[in-house]
Parts: sequence; C-alpha cells; structure tokens
Amino acid sequence: MLNLDELRARIAPPDRAIAERMQHKLDGKTKPRRSLGRLEDFACQYAAIVREDAPALPKKAIVVMGADHGVARRGVSAYPQEVTGQMLLNFAAGGAAINVLARHAGAQVLVIDMGVVAPVAAPNIIDARIGPGTADFTEGPAMTRAQAERALQTGIELAAKLQRDGVRVVGLGEMGIGNTTAASALTAVLTRAAAEEVTGFGTGIDEATHQHKIQLIREALTRHARVAEQGDTLDILAALGGFEIAGLAGLVLGAAAQHMAVMLDGFIASVAALVAVKLVPAARDYLLPSHRSVEAGHGLVLRALGIPPVLELDMRLGEGTGGALSMTLLDAALHIVHEMATFEGASVTDSGA
Amino acid sequence: MLNLDELRARIAPPDRAIAERMQHKLDGKTKPRRSLGRLEDFACQYAAIVREDAPALPKKAIVVMGADHGVARRGVSAYPQEVTGQMLLNFAAGGAAINVLARHAGAQVLVIDMGVVAPVAAPNIIDARIGPGTADFTEGPAMTRAQAERALQTGIELAAKLQRDGVRVVGLGEMGIGNTTAASALTAVLTRAAAEEVTGFGTGIDEATHQHKIQLIREALTRHARVAEQGDTLDILAALGGFEIAGLAGLVLGAAAQHMAVMLDGFIASVAALVAVKLVPAARDYLLPSHRSVEAGHGLVLRALGIPPVLELDMRLGEGTGGALSMTLLDAALHIVHEMATFEGASVTDSGA
Repeated sequence: MLNLDELRARIAPPDRAIAERMQHKLDGKTKPRRSLGRLEDFACQYAAIVREDAPALPKKAIVVMGADHGVARRGVSAYPQEVTGQMLLNFAAGGAAINVLARHAGAQVLVIDMGVVAPVAAPNIIDARIGPGTADFTEGPAMTRAQAERALQTGIELAAKLQRDGVRVVGLGEMGIGNTTAASALTAVLTRAAAEEVTGFGTGIDEATHQHKIQLIREALTRHARVAEQGDTLDILAALGGFEIAGLAGLVLGAAAQHMAVMLDGFIASVAALVAVKLVPAARDYLLPSHRSVEAGHGLVLRALGIPPVLELDMRLGEGTGGALSMTLLDAALHIVHEMATFEGASVTDSGA
Repeated sequence: MLNLDELRARIAPPDRAIAERMQHKLDGKTKPRRSLGRLEDFACQYAAIVREDAPALPKKAIVVMGADHGVARRGVSAYPQEVTGQMLLNFAAGGAAINVLARHAGAQVLVIDMGVVAPVAAPNIIDARIGPGTADFTEGPAMTRAQAERALQTGIELAAKLQRDGVRVVGLGEMGIGNTTAASALTAVLTRAAAEEVTGFGTGIDEATHQHKIQLIREALTRHARVAEQGDTLDILAALGGFEIAGLAGLVLGAAAQHMAVMLDGFIASVAALVAVKLVPAARDYLLPSHRSVEAGHGLVLRALGIPPVLELDMRLGEGTGGALSMTLLDAALHIVHEMATFEGASVTDSGA
C-alpha cells in the first residue's frame, strides 16, 4: 500500500545536466538564442525528465479518471449526477472531446472508473472503484484517509504500468459532476484563499447557483477548519477531495517516480497536481504547462505551482483537453531538436545573440 | 496595378449566418456550451471565412517574405545584414524553425525574396524583388509610394494564386534583419504610442543598442511627422515599412478578398496585418489568432487589432513560427466539428448549460 516516504526517496529532480546540454544544442540552431522561448523549455525539461539527450517523440497517454461527488446532490452543477457515468461511456466509445483531441495529439485515452455512483459497463473502462461516489463534504470528510490512500496508490500503480508500456508523457484528465466544487474547496485550503476567490461557474451554472456553491464551500471550510489548520495534505485531500482528484495526484507521483512527464490540464487536474506537489515537492518539475481555464481558481493554482500557462483558450471542459493540445507543443519542440539546421551546417552567420 | 477601391468593394465580412450555424452544431456536442472556448471560435470563424458549413481540414501555406532594411546599416540588430539572405537559403533548404514547425502543422512553406540586398539563388525562392533593400528611413522614406504599392500588389496576387492551388489558410512569415525597427516605427504611428513603448530587443540586442534603436526610431518619427499626421496609410507604410511588411499586408488583403483565413504570427506579421486592416477594415475578421511575442510593441498591435493571443510562449523568432503552431489549433477545432459525438447520439443528458 501507499508508502509516501519510499516515494519521496524515489522522486529525484529531473537531470539538470541533460537540460543544459539540450539548451546548448538548441543554441546551435539557426535562430537567435532562446528565441523559441518556452517551446525550448518543453524540450529541455522533457529531456531532463526522461534522462535522454536526444529523446524521440514520446508515446503519450491521457488518463481520464471519473468519479462522483456527494456534494453534487446539493445542486452545485448544471448537470445531473448521472452524466458522470454517461460521459465515461462516451469516452469509452471514442466520441468525447478528449477522444478527438487525443487522436489529434497522437495520444491514447485510458478511461478509469474511480467511483461513479452507479458502475458503468464497457470493456475498455478500467474498474478502479474506491466507492459509489464520495460523501458530501459539507457533512463530513469526502473520503476516509484509507480511501484517499487507495486512490493515490491506484494512480501510482497505473503510472508504473504505463511506463512499462512505453508511455513517456501522461496527460491528466478527469470527469466528475461536482468536482469543481471539490477542487475549489481544496484550492481555498492549499492556497489560503477565500471561497469566493476560488469558486467559478463550473459547467455553466447561473449566478444564484454560483452563490449557493460558494456558500457550500464556506460550510465545508468551516466544518473542516481543524483539518485545514492542523492536518497533513492527505487529511485535507480526504476531507475535501474526490476519488479522481486523489487518483490523479497519485498518477503525478507515480509518473515522477518513473521519469515520465505529466501534462497539466484545467482546474481540477491542476489541483490534483498541487496535492501531489504538496505531498512530494520534487514532483513539481515533472509537470509540463498547459492552458489557463476560465475557472476562477485555476490561476491561483497555477501560481502556487509556479507554472504559467502556454495556452489561453478560455476553455473549461477538463477531460485532459488542454493537455492534449499542449502535447502537440511538446512534439513541436522535439521536432525542432531533431530537424532544425545548425548555424554551421546551414552557413548562417552566428552573432551569438 | 494596385486598386484599393476595388479591393474594398470585394472584401465583405465573413458570413455571420454560417458562423452561427457552426456554433449551433458545436452546441449539440457532448460538452457544456462554449466550454471549448476560443477553440470553438476557430471553427466558427474559419467556416464563416471559407463560406462552408462543414469545412474540411484546410490546405495550408506559410508565406515567408524576406527583405532588407536600410536602417540595419545604423546598427540596430544583433546580426549582420547578410543573414537575411542566408536565412532565405536556409528556408529554401528546409532547415529553419519555420520549415520544421510547418511540417508539424502540415503546411507548405513559400519563400519570397521581396528585396534582400544581394539576391540569393535557389530554385525554390520566388523572386519578387522590389529593390536591394529599403532606404534608411532616418534619412528619407524607406520606400517610394510606388514601391509600397508594388509590394502590396505582390501579396495580393500571391493570395489569388494560393487560392487557385487550393490553399485555405495562409500563415504570415517574415525575415529581415532590422525589421523590428521598421515594425516599431509603424506601430508608434499606427497606435499613437511613444518610441520607447514599442521598441524591444529584436533578435537579442544589448541595452545600449536598444537605446540607440529607440533614438533612431524617434529620429524617423520626427523626420516623417508630417506623413504620420497628414498622410494616408499607404504614405505611412512607404515612409516607415519594408518590402516584406508591405507584401504581407497585401497577402492579408488578397486572402480576405479570396475568402481565405490568415494566421497571425509575431510582431512584424501583426503590424503588417494592422496596416492591411487600416487600408481595408473588413479584412480584420479574416485574421486568426496566434501567439504573443516578447517584443514590446506586439501587445499594442494585437490590442489595436482586437485579437488576443491564444499562445503565450515568449517566442520572438518570426518566420511564421507562431502561426504554424496556431494552425494545429485550427485543425484541432475542425476535428472537434467532424468527429465529436452529439448529446443525442451518445445518450448523454443535455442540461442546456
């Protein structure tokens, strides 16, 4: 079962010497030094993560974890709870936005049932159910600590399996009616922000529902105030998180332990990544940047991670859709590494600028 | 030759009814309404531009126009002037950043010599030379009005040829040592900003050269103050622009007249687009968004165009590199249109949110 101390010992920072050699290689290409900006960072960071000086274009997987949330019964979403399971079937059938964008990015999609209310049956949905949705966190902890640990462990083990399958970049995807409410509550505690600063409009609720959502998050923060002040990250995750959020946090840790890159996505995926980084700070440098969603709390989470977005598309869908788009940027960066001419090879005068 | 009145008559806005039908189609997909944000705008705007309700993935071309600038002899760049021609040969040989990123985006690259100092010979460089570089605009107009008109006309005619070849998206690419200086001067006049607000570090100059560059731009603005106040856009373009900037402005106008989409790029390409929009305002809605570069004036130009960037990569290379990356976003948007399931088809509950 979950052994955080062992994980902490296993997760070393990406190899800085490899990043420096990659930058040196890019500096020899026919362009002013650093003129491809953060596209160059993608290449340097990725090489350092996988510990390869000339990494090939990676095999990629987007892991979409679905789970239900007790708080959804309090009316915080524009959609009924059964949509979580319906969407898992849609992912399994290949018809959702993430399926389309993953194909565009050359990534496979893995669909994981981390615990929807009613199990959905499809041969390509992986059953990793922790329970039939979390408990309502306005009334008590969303999960037991043991459930949170099991969900984390699920993600850690999945990362190891993906590594064995040759995957080198893992995208964080999620689906769960009500999970922006959980993500907002976690963000409030982890970034010490007020409920109204971190609470957005989710799938598209109206202003009255938005106020109700803020109020419920305030109730949860009051109820779990002692955990927020005195608990460890695992306690906070158990109190306010969800099965898919814990699972994705585990996936980040497992990926870092396995020297795989993790592609961020929107608000919920980024909160999961922040939980992972609070558990094991060295995991941070395994995270590659993606988009900034319109969700109120996302900017705060990205600032807490210290990872500015590269895409500004005003998206708010989750599923890993922003990560899929960002994967095409990583591929672009690696094409630059492999295909672009050097000053010497192309007889272009190098001023050294 | 150039007939702006005829162009103005030919450039109608994109078809709003088609954009609305595309949005309606996207609203039936299994996701909250508008939750793919500006990715949905790509699809709507593109469909409206090409006047097709279900447009296929487009054939794309990035047009890289190269030219030299008289002001480069005043020492405003980190690179010597011969690098313009050397880089055109690099583009022709397929080794530059834009070749790599265009391949990644599935776009062809056209290399146009609009007037480098010494002609460069390669079978796949299109000769459209207006002259051996512009004159130094601190001493007089960079171009004659006739030269500016010829350069515009070159771009307009090239767009018509690309349309006949089946191209539907045109990327704006440029190369010209000294051309951020020209672009900064144009930006100062077109957005009524001060020299120091619009002048950046180009290919990577030091602070002393930066101050010198600002001073030269001030000199140019003083010398051409009467044109800036009383001249028309064509006079301003002739006084402060460059052959490649005028050529790209023409390409924008020609593309709009031909119902093709134009992919923006960095500072210089965006200034060219702003010139085009000042000449024919209806051309604006044929421009698709790309990145925001680190060049000081780029944000101002994008605000003047009213087109926020979708990519924040701190790039500063030009060549059309940001446009190539943005083309992959347009393709992603069109894949969504063609491949994503509907609420009805996938049996997912539609709340209408």
